Amino acid sequence: MKEKYLVINAGSSSLKFSLYTMPEAKEIVNGLVERIGNEDSCYTLKYDGKKQEKNKVIMNHTEAVKTMLEELLANNFISDINEIKGVGHRVLHGAEIYKESTLINEETLRNLEGLVKFGPLHLPGAIAGIKSMMQYLDVPQVAVFDTSFHNTIPEENYRYAVPEEFYTQDGVRKYGFHGTSYRYITKEMQKRYEKEDVNLIICHVGSGASMCCVKDGKSYDTTMGLTPLAGLIMGTRSGDIDPSIIEYICKERNLTVSEVTNILNKKSGLLGIAGKNDNRDLESARKNGDKKATLALEMLKNSIEKYIGQYYIELKGKVDAIVFTAGIGENAISLRESIINDISVPLNIKLNKEMNDNISRRSAYQGGKISTPDSSIEVLVLPTNEEYMILKDTYEISKKIEEKIQEETNKKVLKLN
Amino acid sequence: MKEKYLVINAGSSSLKFSLYTMPEAKEIVNGLVERIGNEDSCYTLKYDGKKQEKNKVIMNHTEAVKTMLEELLANNFISDINEIKGVGHRVLHGAEIYKESTLINEETLRNLEGLVKFGPLHLPGAIAGIKSMMQYLDVPQVAVFDTSFHNTIPEENYRYAVPEEFYTQDGVRKYGFHGTSYRYITKEMQKRYEKEDVNLIICHVGSGASMCCVKDGKSYDTTMGLTPLAGLIMGTRSGDIDPSIIEYICKERNLTVSEVTNILNKKSGLLGIAGKNDNRDLESARKNGDKKATLALEMLKNSIEKYIGQYYIELKGKVDAIVFTAGIGENAISLRESIINDISVPLNIKLNKEMNDNISRRSAYQGGKISTPDSSIEVLVLPTNEEYMILKDTYEISKKIEEKIQEETNKKVLKLN
Repeated sequence: MKEKYLVINAGSSSLKFSLYTMPEAKEIVNGLVERIGNEDSCYTLKYDGKKQEKNKVIMNHTEAVKTMLEELLANNFISDINEIKGVGHRVLHGAEIYKESTLINEETLRNLEGLVKFGPLHLPGAIAGIKSMMQYLDVPQVAVFDTSFHNTIPEENYRYAVPEEFYTQDGVRKYGFHGTSYRYITKEMQKRYEKEDVNLIICHVGSGASMCCVKDGKSYDTTMGLTPLAGLIMGTRSGDIDPSIIEYICKERNLTVSEVTNILNKKSGLLGIAGKNDNRDLESARKNGDKKATLALEMLKNSIEKYIGQYYIELKGKVDAIVFTAGIGENAISLRESIINDISVPLNIKLNKEMNDNISRRSAYQGGKISTPDSSIEVLVLPTNEEYMILKDTYEISKKIEEKIQEETNKKVLKLN
Repeated sequence: MKEKYLVINAGSSSLKFSLYTMPEAKEIVNGLVERIGNEDSCYTLKYDGKKQEKNKVIMNHTEAVKTMLEELLANNFISDINEIKGVGHRVLHGAEIYKESTLINEETLRNLEGLVKFGPLHLPGAIAGIKSMMQYLDVPQVAVFDTSFHNTIPEENYRYAVPEEFYTQDGVRKYGFHGTSYRYITKEMQKRYEKEDVNLIICHVGSGASMCCVKDGKSYDTTMGLTPLAGLIMGTRSGDIDPSIIEYICKERNLTVSEVTNILNKKSGLLGIAGKNDNRDLESARKNGDKKATLALEMLKNSIEKYIGQYYIELKGKVDAIVFTAGIGENAISLRESIINDISVPLNIKLNKEMNDNISRRSAYQGGKISTPDSSIEVLVLPTNEEYMILKDTYEISKKIEEKIQEETNKKVLKLN
């Protein structure tokens, strides 16, 4: 029987899962439980190109996990719960405690509870997901953090110019996110260039968007900060703004700081400027002459270009590649085209228009190069694969645990002999 | 008798003034009234290399203006109040109303009252100063705005990715400051290069610090925003931070949004990181191995370099000069040296070390070039002169008014004839 591994991404009211066989990393099925805690909760299963949707009242994460396991058994994705050898959990925030993926134990859970202040919208869901899985499965559970790739950022880049005690006592610093994506892209680039010390500018542009400056194969700077609100303009997040705007809007609109921060997270970004935030909708609105959509797309483009400029300087001009990834990065042809045209003269890069136009449409899409051979810096489009990284870490840590248990068993057997 | 003009910079509890003869723009005397409204208020006068200090209880701006005029008469800087032909006022914020310097009338004063929300710490003092001057002098009073040079910034650069109504209803946008300084530097550069359409990256680094991207002789982007808090790390201001930090600190430290914003303005920046914010103190602390001072200076340097990178991209690599100005920009030899060394490879600029080391020490210091002749972009140090710009605008507007009055008088005389 094949060994199977689960990858879980639990939010405050949702639970995504995928089941894989290892070491092939072949996905058997994936699913999503939505609106947990609401009466209209439901879930979907996807496998073999098919999609099943079911309505079921699911009041908490434990019920979500139970439902998932029942479906895996009922559909013969597993014949026994013991086939699952490990579970990987995506966790938003590891703060300064978790500098790499880690086996979850009681101490880990206590630590995660202590980090809720850094991710009040995301961490409680992840913790509930972990606890629920632990109730049903006595196998290694691994936490993979969005922050941990950024643990190599030097102090001058992660500190803010705020009172020192905000850092030492309250933990206010740049943590950065999308680290699992950057780790994947960096590894791929290390293979491509056959060296460890790659210098990259990675643009992870999805509905959440950030960029990473990778120096010598390590995260050196990134656009998100204490939380995922900072940096680039995003679908609904403002990115960088004058911090005074918060007090100003609190006063002008008689709102609390939490209400304003919530608006900056959920009603700002492209949505705030243009009233819509889907990149395809914005593109077609722009084609129809919609000025707000044009402005929003222009501002998104500029915010990416500014950080390309910053990171170009931070890498002292020594850049192996600029990489576009994630939903918009992989698919927004005209965004990539206009960025490359804008940076063409200062960075000596030329667009390979034919490649850029067609790269996302290829079957078995593997990404590739969209700059011309005479460009000083390669520009690449590469699909990210955070899930694969979570799976891989979970597998490796689970295997180590297994080996350790095996070793100890062997020792005991030896002693008995 | 020479025509004389006053330049006034009134803060919430201070009033700076300088008296000039025109058109020579020769300063006769300058002075500063401090701690207006406090019992230990005092004032100083400086002229002919001498300095007078006097203690006097000065309870409001009107008393400050009265004291100033009495001193000007008592010391024979003017023999009659009517020798003063115009008064220029430095005003922090002109919002979208004032795109250039303007003659102050009743409407202007009403408009300025409406703009207090944008500069609650600065504008009430400026308004009090203007009103007080108007009580004593019936001559043209001119407002010169820190924001108005930036009125050419295009919408995609001045808008924030926040809900549109924050802009349309509340006026939340990037206004930018230090505009009078940037205007001065730009004019000097236009003379140097004998063309209007200069492209510049200007670093105005004083205790307040910002940068300006000048494209075709016009402000195209700048680092400060709705208020002077945004952008570079400053003496006591944080510059850009993750906007979420405000809500986070409010909760962690049980503070109001106004208290946190005040901390970001007055206890952050270099002071927050290192416990001191005078650049010379920081430099000597660094020489003594002080880690916090080293970190603070490194972060200041980085924040300037990042915007050089941004603006290099915004100008599509076509940059005539990078200009350093204001207190730190003109005097911090090692800051300039380390910036130029860091940007040397990506922007192909080499430091002229001898010039950089000695430029601020020359007598009759006029600024000059600190890059080598084979650099792709010139780097210059140039002392700014905001006061001269205020004086010049005031003189020109006053002269126009005078001519207009003269014309009307002539017309009347003609009619009578």
